[in-house]
Amino acid sequence: MKAIVIKPHVIGMEVKNIDLEEKLGKNQVRIKTLYTGVCGTDRGLVNNKLSFVRAPEGWDELILGHEAFGIIEEVGEDVTEFKKGDYVVPVVRRGCGVCLNCKIGRQDFCETGNFVEAGIRGKHGFMREEFVDDEMYLVRVPESIKDIAVLTEPLSNVVKAIDEVMQVQRRMVWNCPDGAYDCRNAYVVGTGPIGTFYSILLRTYGFNVFMLNRRDPSPAEEYVSKRINAQFVNTTKSEEMNKLPKADIIVDSSGFPSAFIPLLSKINKNGILVLFGTETGDKTPIDADLVSFMVENNIAVIGSVNANKMNFKESVNYLTMWKEKYGELLNRMITTVVSPEEANTILEKKPKGEIKSVIKWSD
Amino acid sequence: MKAIVIKPHVIGMEVKNIDLEEKLGKNQVRIKTLYTGVCGTDRGLVNNKLSFVRAPEGWDELILGHEAFGIIEEVGEDVTEFKKGDYVVPVVRRGCGVCLNCKIGRQDFCETGNFVEAGIRGKHGFMREEFVDDEMYLVRVPESIKDIAVLTEPLSNVVKAIDEVMQVQRRMVWNCPDGAYDCRNAYVVGTGPIGTFYSILLRTYGFNVFMLNRRDPSPAEEYVSKRINAQFVNTTKSEEMNKLPKADIIVDSSGFPSAFIPLLSKINKNGILVLFGTETGDKTPIDADLVSFMVENNIAVIGSVNANKMNFKESVNYLTMWKEKYGELLNRMITTVVSPEEANTILEKKPKGEIKSVIKWSD
Amino acid sequence: MKAIVIKPHVIGMEVKNIDLEEKLGKNQVRIKTLYTGVCGTDRGLVNNKLSFVRAPEGWDELILGHEAFGIIEEVGEDVTEFKKGDYVVPVVRRGCGVCLNCKIGRQDFCETGNFVEAGIRGKHGFMREEFVDDEMYLVRVPESIKDIAVLTEPLSNVVKAIDEVMQVQRRMVWNCPDGAYDCRNAYVVGTGPIGTFYSILLRTYGFNVFMLNRRDPSPAEEYVSKRINAQFVNTTKSEEMNKLPKADIIVDSSGFPSAFIPLLSKINKNGILVLFGTETGDKTPIDADLVSFMVENNIAVIGSVNANKMNFKESVNYLTMWKEKYGELLNRMITTVVSPEEANTILEKKPKGEIKSVIKWSD
Amino acid sequence: MKAIVIKPHVIGMEVKNIDLEEKLGKNQVRIKTLYTGVCGTDRGLVNNKLSFVRAPEGWDELILGHEAFGIIEEVGEDVTEFKKGDYVVPVVRRGCGVCLNCKIGRQDFCETGNFVEAGIRGKHGFMREEFVDDEMYLVRVPESIKDIAVLTEPLSNVVKAIDEVMQVQRRMVWNCPDGAYDCRNAYVVGTGPIGTFYSILLRTYGFNVFMLNRRDPSPAEEYVSKRINAQFVNTTKSEEMNKLPKADIIVDSSGFPSAFIPLLSKINKNGILVLFGTETGDKTPIDADLVSFMVENNIAVIGSVNANKMNFKESVNYLTMWKEKYGELLNRMITTVVSPEEANTILEKKPKGEIKSVIKWSD
Repeated sequence: MKAIVIKPHVIGMEVKNIDLEEKLGKNQVRIKTLYTGVCGTDRGLVNNKLSFVRAPEGWDELILGHEAFGIIEEVGEDVTEFKKGDYVVPVVRRGCGVCLNCKIGRQDFCETGNFVEAGIRGKHGFMREEFVDDEMYLVRVPESIKDIAVLTEPLSNVVKAIDEVMQVQRRMVWNCPDGAYDCRNAYVVGTGPIGTFYSILLRTYGFNVFMLNRRDPSPAEEYVSKRINAQFVNTTKSEEMNKLPKADIIVDSSGFPSAFIPLLSKINKNGILVLFGTETGDKTPIDADLVSFMVENNIAVIGSVNANKMNFKESVNYLTMWKEKYGELLNRMITTVVSPEEANTILEKKPKGEIKSVIKWSD
Repeated sequence: MKAIVIKPHVIGMEVKNIDLEEKLGKNQVRIKTLYTGVCGTDRGLVNNKLSFVRAPEGWDELILGHEAFGIIEEVGEDVTEFKKGDYVVPVVRRGCGVCLNCKIGRQDFCETGNFVEAGIRGKHGFMREEFVDDEMYLVRVPESIKDIAVLTEPLSNVVKAIDEVMQVQRRMVWNCPDGAYDCRNAYVVGTGPIGTFYSILLRTYGFNVFMLNRRDPSPAEEYVSKRINAQFVNTTKSEEMNKLPKADIIVDSSGFPSAFIPLLSKINKNGILVLFGTETGDKTPIDADLVSFMVENNIAVIGSVNANKMNFKESVNYLTMWKEKYGELLNRMITTVVSPEEANTILEKKPKGEIKSVIKWSD
Repeated sequence: MKAIVIKPHVIGMEVKNIDLEEKLGKNQVRIKTLYTGVCGTDRGLVNNKLSFVRAPEGWDELILGHEAFGIIEEVGEDVTEFKKGDYVVPVVRRGCGVCLNCKIGRQDFCETGNFVEAGIRGKHGFMREEFVDDEMYLVRVPESIKDIAVLTEPLSNVVKAIDEVMQVQRRMVWNCPDGAYDCRNAYVVGTGPIGTFYSILLRTYGFNVFMLNRRDPSPAEEYVSKRINAQFVNTTKSEEMNKLPKADIIVDSSGFPSAFIPLLSKINKNGILVLFGTETGDKTPIDADLVSFMVENNIAVIGSVNANKMNFKESVNYLTMWKEKYGELLNRMITTVVSPEEANTILEKKPKGEIKSVIKWSD
Repeated sequence: MKAIVIKPHVIGMEVKNIDLEEKLGKNQVRIKTLYTGVCGTDRGLVNNKLSFVRAPEGWDELILGHEAFGIIEEVGEDVTEFKKGDYVVPVVRRGCGVCLNCKIGRQDFCETGNFVEAGIRGKHGFMREEFVDDEMYLVRVPESIKDIAVLTEPLSNVVKAIDEVMQVQRRMVWNCPDGAYDCRNAYVVGTGPIGTFYSILLRTYGFNVFMLNRRDPSPAEEYVSKRINAQFVNTTKSEEMNKLPKADIIVDSSGFPSAFIPLLSKINKNGILVLFGTETGDKTPIDADLVSFMVENNIAVIGSVNANKMNFKESVNYLTMWKEKYGELLNRMITTVVSPEEANTILEKKPKGEIKSVIKWSD
């Protein structure tokens, strides 16, 4: 079958025929891939910028792809949850089996680091025509969202982070006097697919959302921010920055400390900063006054990565709800669709005006 | 009566006679001060380094003192919880009455900033022979710890911070396989009274504790670390640093980013950094790689300040338990006792070898 | 305007013209009523079976109706959240303003009992052509679910109860080894609208759901249980009961202890029983062996009533998601629609085959 | 060595010499037994009233004893936490190793039921001169409480239950306006050692405690209630019952539904009932009105059993704190001390005026 492969620690990718001869074991299903999404991690792998990449044991190549959506075409022995024709999304990370978090299905908090991640480290990914997987790693998707279900994985990470925020903020009363969150302000730094998902999710909770970037919005960003009733802010324009109310939550999806550290002076008491972006090269000083400010104001910061199966399910629920509520909003987040043969055009570098690019494998 | 006063925004302090003519209202008691403690905040006020200082309305002087212990000498109308002769510690911060946290007794998370703090901003402190207070702001102390009860307030802030840590870490399973915390390592940066309290409290939870400073331990620090079975680490000695196991929690009581930022490279996955120290002048760069590290490893950071009444009660309980368990350990933390007349010797600058200095007002 | 009124403590209801002359104050909006739902409480009020009924101060009549959906037709001064044409659902209970829970927007946990509830006690309800309300008591509804949004209020109470269940069950690990809830079984006792909502919501969480009644399913119940992949169980048939696997959660929506007490022998360790139904007349003995069983197995029981504003918002989200996922399922739960003039046919007694009956006030 | 044994399912006990030839394995220590406590479960086992009793595999006898305190006399290979001469208490239940709760050290919430409990089911107990145990099942005790440390185990179960109460009650704000619990009332039904521990622990949290029994207090009970500032209530005297304020928490340590069900009418909104007692034979009807009351008032009920290692540690901390605070209070709870040879006098039936009876094995 066709697959997109890389050689770990080598620049480049290849679309080639590869036969894994995957047998269908107990509790396993065979899935025909419909769509796979592409994110910065995929591009980092193709351009050999991520040192943690690892091929499966016994392989020198790795099939790419961790954002996938497919349809079950064959069901193995003792499969109880799924049947042929069900639409599914696979979870990415598979736990180490040793630490307590992995033992209870919270591999997103794996302690040993000995997990594998499909298409990233130690396990082949989903950029191939079909794959076999254990039913326990699959999440069901309603047919009605099959056009956008490839967005489940990136959204799942955002869902996990906000779940965690709500947990952390139970250290005090964080809701508004009416019991909801409509009096709270959120800055989302970075307006790619992750920043967009944070914005929609925080709007769903009721937060007033400000989408921050160092430039004016693209037409797609303009559309999104209007549709969800958020406000796009060009952080290089002081007249926009001066009107910005203080934030109760700041989410950084950029990875640049120079982008979010200066914003901390505008965070409210008991506020929280979510770190989600990963970058290199940028550097910003923090001084003792900022530390004192964080102490005096009970500021919390959380770095958040990955998602567990429950977050994938919640992600599917949000996509379903938002489709009914916002119509074509999520479809318009998918700015490019290419065939596997053209995948290099979206894997080697980011297309202009991209929110999310995807590869279509089958109808 | 005798009192220790400052003029806000002026360097210096004075022991003088001052008559507040405090009437005993409903639900109020009159307390004879026995001991008051001195901390960095008091010295900051005396040396005019803390811009948030504020005298009570209508006053141009402020009576100092927020760490106090006393005995009730007169009970007002409708007082139900206390009687003459009860030993008590007053809480420091009194809520704004407006924000939700203050409304439910969590003024340590006040959102408006419109609280008052005895001896610090907007309310006279306890460095005087007696004071009147509402019974709701008092916490009872068993007679058996009257020699160390002046330590209640500083410990209460530590109790709050660790309560908060345990709340935040419920985002995953943080305990060891046996359900306790004995497999976890804690670094405590700074070995003053606050660092010492963090060390004892974390030992009580079961953590392996490493007390970090930029020098070898003083005899008092040597005694404390041995007594609680913690390990003192001189961070300037690479042979000690190299043997240090990774940390699950790092507490900074120094306020210097240059002291704790470099330690983050030694924090375990899902670890947490507690910011407690407040300083000025120090500066350290953070780079995108550190941010990526925090993201990839689900690192949390919390700034924590102040304590609520329940934390004061827990603080009294810990002092009581530790006295039974550790004998004179806590007494030896009180390194200096002076009369009000000599208070300038401990308020103007930190005595050599100090862990905690206190003023004795009465027997 | 037309309104449906009762005289508290008198059997009967009346459709009559009544003019409240409601002025539009600051932060208030005028809402044209579109639909109001009818539940057992309304029928209890009409048939004078609920002693807690209370007219507003100065009135001897009470306008009925607590399940409502409408459209904003006029906006008062300083209204920030809504504009003319927005669809909204009002919350029912308005807090006492005194207890801590009401102060933070959690009037569903009011401690004093001095709340008012629209259409039930102390405040006119929504069975009238229009009403004025404070914007803080309104929840926005997307236009796409305007045909089913009248279901928001009854669902909100179910959402609150399950939120509470998830909170209570954090006393241990309750999820399955994969981190989700698909290995857990739920019995829902009673298959009216509330039982149906519990079933759909628990299915959404992933639970295997068994809908229990003392009879075979009606065609509507058959349709619902099939559609959501739950199993209807006739508890009078021993062959069905014998095949029932043990439950991790039992929800009683019947109010009859004789219906749920015997089921406790089939609850798993660490299981939870939710009490939601309110009835009179039924009686069942509990013996010390059952108490011992509850102790030895860490069984929890929670009675749950009412919902807060956040639950209303979550309820709107679920309706939106389920409409996209299940199509006409929710529409088919609305088994009867009548005009105000015909309201007596659904308010005086329950129509045959009813899941939910509603009154249509306007297009 | 001397040991106290029973034959499961046979009435009677025997003090006999038995040699287990326990080798000291890796991570194990040999413990000389100092004291073992006796509780209702031990008497139930001796009188063959507990059907769940089970000898270890390959045995037809079971050594009794689950409440123990001892001193380490020999340390095996790789033991890191303990040394010869350390005082310790062993935990009772050892997890199934299969369910998620046992995997994370929460065997008190074991789901499979396949745990063993020393002296009760599947594992020899501690009523013998010495025993070998894994260090992970031991909790350190400070020497200063060696006279009362045998109380650790019974208290640990109470600590777990109240921890659970605090977790469950986070469903809303349960603290008083000052952030503490002094405005809350607790009824404790039953005044044996468990009821006494609940009373002291709830007093420590700040609750006003009412100790309920069907008779006047014994002198020991009179002493205890006075010492902790609780109130003893004879529930058969209507003048005492009429003065009883409403309860926020009711703890039943009796196991008799006829004792606690009638008290539910006196529970406040959002109140919680803790079931802890296990009995047989008693029976009380509950009716639909009581169920409605529980629904309308958000009443929670939890059955609670056993304790985890952290609760044992907290139990040691409480004993230490209470010894310092209350002096001989806990010593006076130990009403009888006998030699192993006299153990039948406290194991076959409850001595008159007992709070806690113990067997002394060594000095």
